[in-house]
Amino acid sequence: MADRSAAPGTGGHDDHDLPRGAGAATPPPPTPEEQKQLDQLYADFEAGHMIPLWTEIGDLMPPEPRPAAQPHLWRWKDLLPLAERAGDLVPVGRGGERRAISLANPGLGGRPYTTPTLWCAIQYLGGHEVAPEHRHSQNAFRFVVEGEGVWTVVNGDPVRMSRGDFLLTPGWNFHGHHNETDRPMAWIDGLDIPFVHYTDTSFFEFGTDRVTDDSTPDLSRSERLWANPGLRPLSGLRTTVSSPIGAYRWEHTDRALAEQLRIEDEGYPATVEQGHAAVRYVNPTDGGDVMPTIRAQFHRLRPGTQTRTVREVGSSVYQVFEGRGHAHVGDRSYEVEKGDLFVVPSWAPFTLQAESQLDLFQFGDHPVIEKLNFQRVHVEGETE
Amino acid sequence: MADRSAAPGTGGHDDHDLPRGAGAATPPPPTPEEQKQLDQLYADFEAGHMIPLWTEIGDLMPPEPRPAAQPHLWRWKDLLPLAERAGDLVPVGRGGERRAISLANPGLGGRPYTTPTLWCAIQYLGGHEVAPEHRHSQNAFRFVVEGEGVWTVVNGDPVRMSRGDFLLTPGWNFHGHHNETDRPMAWIDGLDIPFVHYTDTSFFEFGTDRVTDDSTPDLSRSERLWANPGLRPLSGLRTTVSSPIGAYRWEHTDRALAEQLRIEDEGYPATVEQGHAAVRYVNPTDGGDVMPTIRAQFHRLRPGTQTRTVREVGSSVYQVFEGRGHAHVGDRSYEVEKGDLFVVPSWAPFTLQAESQLDLFQFGDHPVIEKLNFQRVHVEGETE
Amino acid sequence: MADRSAAPGTGGHDDHDLPRGAGAATPPPPTPEEQKQLDQLYADFEAGHMIPLWTEIGDLMPPEPRPAAQPHLWRWKDLLPLAERAGDLVPVGRGGERRAISLANPGLGGRPYTTPTLWCAIQYLGGHEVAPEHRHSQNAFRFVVEGEGVWTVVNGDPVRMSRGDFLLTPGWNFHGHHNETDRPMAWIDGLDIPFVHYTDTSFFEFGTDRVTDDSTPDLSRSERLWANPGLRPLSGLRTTVSSPIGAYRWEHTDRALAEQLRIEDEGYPATVEQGHAAVRYVNPTDGGDVMPTIRAQFHRLRPGTQTRTVREVGSSVYQVFEGRGHAHVGDRSYEVEKGDLFVVPSWAPFTLQAESQLDLFQFGDHPVIEKLNFQRVHVEGETE
Amino acid sequence: MADRSAAPGTGGHDDHDLPRGAGAATPPPPTPEEQKQLDQLYADFEAGHMIPLWTEIGDLMPPEPRPAAQPHLWRWKDLLPLAERAGDLVPVGRGGERRAISLANPGLGGRPYTTPTLWCAIQYLGGHEVAPEHRHSQNAFRFVVEGEGVWTVVNGDPVRMSRGDFLLTPGWNFHGHHNETDRPMAWIDGLDIPFVHYTDTSFFEFGTDRVTDDSTPDLSRSERLWANPGLRPLSGLRTTVSSPIGAYRWEHTDRALAEQLRIEDEGYPATVEQGHAAVRYVNPTDGGDVMPTIRAQFHRLRPGTQTRTVREVGSSVYQVFEGRGHAHVGDRSYEVEKGDLFVVPSWAPFTLQAESQLDLFQFGDHPVIEKLNFQRVHVEGETE
Repeated sequence: MADRSAAPGTGGHDDHDLPRGAGAATPPPPTPEEQKQLDQLYADFEAGHMIPLWTEIGDLMPPEPRPAAQPHLWRWKDLLPLAERAGDLVPVGRGGERRAISLANPGLGGRPYTTPTLWCAIQYLGGHEVAPEHRHSQNAFRFVVEGEGVWTVVNGDPVRMSRGDFLLTPGWNFHGHHNETDRPMAWIDGLDIPFVHYTDTSFFEFGTDRVTDDSTPDLSRSERLWANPGLRPLSGLRTTVSSPIGAYRWEHTDRALAEQLRIEDEGYPATVEQGHAAVRYVNPTDGGDVMPTIRAQFHRLRPGTQTRTVREVGSSVYQVFEGRGHAHVGDRSYEVEKGDLFVVPSWAPFTLQAESQLDLFQFGDHPVIEKLNFQRVHVEGETE
Repeated sequence: MADRSAAPGTGGHDDHDLPRGAGAATPPPPTPEEQKQLDQLYADFEAGHMIPLWTEIGDLMPPEPRPAAQPHLWRWKDLLPLAERAGDLVPVGRGGERRAISLANPGLGGRPYTTPTLWCAIQYLGGHEVAPEHRHSQNAFRFVVEGEGVWTVVNGDPVRMSRGDFLLTPGWNFHGHHNETDRPMAWIDGLDIPFVHYTDTSFFEFGTDRVTDDSTPDLSRSERLWANPGLRPLSGLRTTVSSPIGAYRWEHTDRALAEQLRIEDEGYPATVEQGHAAVRYVNPTDGGDVMPTIRAQFHRLRPGTQTRTVREVGSSVYQVFEGRGHAHVGDRSYEVEKGDLFVVPSWAPFTLQAESQLDLFQFGDHPVIEKLNFQRVHVEGETE
Repeated sequence: MADRSAAPGTGGHDDHDLPRGAGAATPPPPTPEEQKQLDQLYADFEAGHMIPLWTEIGDLMPPEPRPAAQPHLWRWKDLLPLAERAGDLVPVGRGGERRAISLANPGLGGRPYTTPTLWCAIQYLGGHEVAPEHRHSQNAFRFVVEGEGVWTVVNGDPVRMSRGDFLLTPGWNFHGHHNETDRPMAWIDGLDIPFVHYTDTSFFEFGTDRVTDDSTPDLSRSERLWANPGLRPLSGLRTTVSSPIGAYRWEHTDRALAEQLRIEDEGYPATVEQGHAAVRYVNPTDGGDVMPTIRAQFHRLRPGTQTRTVREVGSSVYQVFEGRGHAHVGDRSYEVEKGDLFVVPSWAPFTLQAESQLDLFQFGDHPVIEKLNFQRVHVEGETE
Repeated sequence: MADRSAAPGTGGHDDHDLPRGAGAATPPPPTPEEQKQLDQLYADFEAGHMIPLWTEIGDLMPPEPRPAAQPHLWRWKDLLPLAERAGDLVPVGRGGERRAISLANPGLGGRPYTTPTLWCAIQYLGGHEVAPEHRHSQNAFRFVVEGEGVWTVVNGDPVRMSRGDFLLTPGWNFHGHHNETDRPMAWIDGLDIPFVHYTDTSFFEFGTDRVTDDSTPDLSRSERLWANPGLRPLSGLRTTVSSPIGAYRWEHTDRALAEQLRIEDEGYPATVEQGHAAVRYVNPTDGGDVMPTIRAQFHRLRPGTQTRTVREVGSSVYQVFEGRGHAHVGDRSYEVEKGDLFVVPSWAPFTLQAESQLDLFQFGDHPVIEKLNFQRVHVEGETE
């Protein structure tokens, strides 16, 4: 924030040679008397809960996004042991609700925010533990990089969690988790907690302390009704703001990506760029994003592929699902492997390089950006 | 924010009798050895840029919105003299760009934010002064509570500003202002500056130092093409994200409100509640809000009318246009008159009482709330 | 329709050198035995309510539209006297419901259809006569080329009818008419009667024999609530499939067209082509067409203007409101003047030439065409 | 159509006791002189291509739909042999284009229309025969009740045709068929030929005489890209008016229906009514109908199930895929079995009874009805 005690003009568009004050061609410096009056004016502004634009505009309205959020990498091999220690020391249950530890972006002032809008956490559930049911206006998903044995129960529908699955608990759906095995399980949670907190839209309600249905079916009813390609149950013709599919299974994601690369080999369009297959998880009732605030996608790069450098308005979090490679984000460069998580802030130049075949899960706040018409994309070497 | 040094559980849902830790039925207090390990765990979290949910959940995910933004009133009779003093002391021009002084909500940590998402400022332009052209991704409007003599030039179309007019400069439209008279003029600006800053979506570009067209027509071309009721130019069939109308004139607003009250007198439905007429400013290409992030409405209450108490998700700013009355916001109560501005934070109970006929301009962030499906309204005495 | 007794192949794409039968490279002519079997086959088809494609395809699926509807002109000076004679001889009231005489396209087999989808009629109401109330699924409008003194009552809201006004009675709204004067009045009705008949979607219900409100206000409540540019009543936020505006007044249409021509004079884009101003009547709740099946527009040509020749999928009816000129439709050419009505069938090349300033009202079935994705436009000299 | 020579009033709402003429309370019968003038008036109407409403209204605007189309049944055991005879006698190729024989509704005047809007035909392709490529604005699909061995090539993408598959060729996609085997194959085609003919929207273009790709993959590229549940290729983010899926495979349809019945058994909502599972084929880019004018659905009834009697605006064609049962349509009742096709006209009361498990394919014009806002449904025993 600009120093308000400073002479007017400080904080103005500092990437330009700026006149003082609210502008005007080269005014003379204030006389001591003028300065006294100015100081009094600024003091009166402060007393009146007023702040001039001209001391703030450079910070407030930059020529292009200057995120406080930073590119940052969290290594799975660091996260998991910490989650395990929490498992030993911190019980899970009503009150704290979840044994989830968020990834706090170093640029966001010690808040538990991975990006300005998104929360990403590693959640850990020990053998036979139960996370009690609750619901909230925040939209949530889980993505499983490894392990199995936990079922999440969403509005009474038990949903198996296994490696590679993407699972939804949209806003205001009751949900709890239970681990049917002796082994602990860890996965990542993604929510719009920071956005909901920022917009003052949080509603939260407790449910039962145990899950309402502890059966362990292979497929949830939501999948049996909705995960049939191009088919919609006549009992479900109303468009819903979030996807009715509780789990997007790895076998489907894997096959879709593999087919894109095969079709590319056959010489037909299928991938987003050479060697780069990608799918978006969507709401089958309208073909749009799975939830109102969160976009989720999955990428597969052939060994040796380097993506074009892209700058996009909106922030993303990536998790490496399998393989090895490099991620270049802004001025940082990371060597990444299975489970590693990293942030791509708004408008940061971003490139991926695949050593082996590289599979990555991505989620971001792009539905927010697009619905409010702030989207912009710049692809290196293309004209906007 | 919760005290992280505290025992686990602090910061949990404190409006409930909570177990310690991430929950679990009444665990024993930690032994000294456990406490040591816990302290080490929290230290390692911090070092690893990780924050547990269980220490934050009470603040992060309240049972209903607990805005940091406070109800607050700024009196026109206080604002205007300060703006006049700024007019004497602070030149306007390139760099500072505008002689605008924002209303800073006392709850928002000294940031120039009137609500978490919205900026409201009083802008002041002296006789024959010019505010240079620029454009930005932020959406902006002006509302004129008094005065005349300034034209705002939006993408080369000069738009007269007069009392009661609501004027648009949607995102990425070049715009500047010039005062054709010897007298200063003041008005309010509304923008989504805080939201754009928060989402890292700001783009800003300078235009000409003088306005590109200093003619002073009574009506802008945008009005002549678009402000014809129920008629759309065949040259403008594409739906646009923001309204193509540059100015919504007072004569139309006033007549629409007066007619609603007359129709109510005739015994037909027309008003939102007895004695309360209201219109929304809309985009004629789709009937929706004027800009992607900002809703603007105008209210007229008959003398003696008291509105139902309403709680609504999303934040609003009101300016009294004419008349006297009382505004009850949360636990505050304000006597208001012409020009006074006040904030209604998200979910704050809100009631208006009219002494005389009371006319109010309102703007809010409700398009953001609704497009992302967080809307909720509670009307006292109604079931949700 | 193709002659079924003919050898197979007749009726095939006769604008191509076609093989016989369902095709196949130059088959030998059938032997007498084959012909006997073919004749039996065709007889058995007929008995089984079956019809082969190959005898029909040329008629059924032409390379481009070949409307049965013809361009045709009805002169006001012929229509009006016939309507007057009907006024003398045929009473109006319950049963026949309306003294309306439709324009029957000569190409449509003596059905009362002006185009395949649209009905256009001249309606005549004598001094102090009343047309009783009813409602139907058919969408209806009236356009007034001359006269005044009749009010149409739509769902209890009395709507004045005057020269240049465009008035709506969307599907399933009760409506009746009454003439407050001693003088008769005539106007045109437009409905989707043929389309509704074709799709078997007609519902019809009688209302009161007299109008439910015989007051004669200058403006209907619908206009007072809805005909305020860019303003929407807060009591009317639900999008409706048809426009809530009961009357689109001539003063607004006239001004909108005049402004387009003035702006063109000032050197800014406003018209659809040089010298050709045009507006579409729209539903203010969504900016779309006034009713689900009918588009209505108004055109003004400067003296001497000739429009580009356009071919458009979908059928239109035009009425000259004022002025003199020529209409070229397909291979026909008409000299037209005030009140004259003519048809532009689908895909017929269409050009207008204005001698004087030429004002024309147009309605068509283009919403049907566009919602079902059959729209195509070809402008002479442009590439599609 | 009404007899125009008759006295005015004939043809009026005959389900009411109607006055003569355009109505009016009990007018006296016309005098001989009046009758002479009336006759002259009607003659002059005819000469002027004008038709009065009052002689037509009863037919034109019935109180509820009175379709000319009739309920009708075509038995597969009758259709197939006729198609086979056509296979022996009528070659297939350029000109006639397809060996398709339409089902001509007995109520529609000998036109090749199964309903007013829809064409249904049996198409027959002999061993190693090829139907040449073409494209047209008409939307088309195929449904396979038995057989295999044919590939349809849609815009160069070869699509296998097998029992139970539903295959799309939306408007303006080039397509041809080729039979890879020695055995003939028959299937049904569904198109909007009558609607396109009626609205004068037909465009037709020849393609290659042989198919552009005679390979015989098990899955089309369209399926490999698009038939992955809840997954959308990032290379295909644009919403398309028709589904990009070339084939909806029986295995998916069968499983979706079986799961609905299982979930019903488990006590959860899944079916449209007890014992009646149903899916709609949809466009994955928006969740809507597969093509702009045609809805396609599939039904499965448990043995012994009887559906509620439903009247629906819009017309449908059903084909029994498997099983035995009865269809009650209007005043007709049919015993149906595999392959049988029947018509349900608009607003005809319709009930199905299943002897065995009964599987039926359905297509209809409901997207037309709904997009134009004419939809109405009446379920026996429910209030509308």
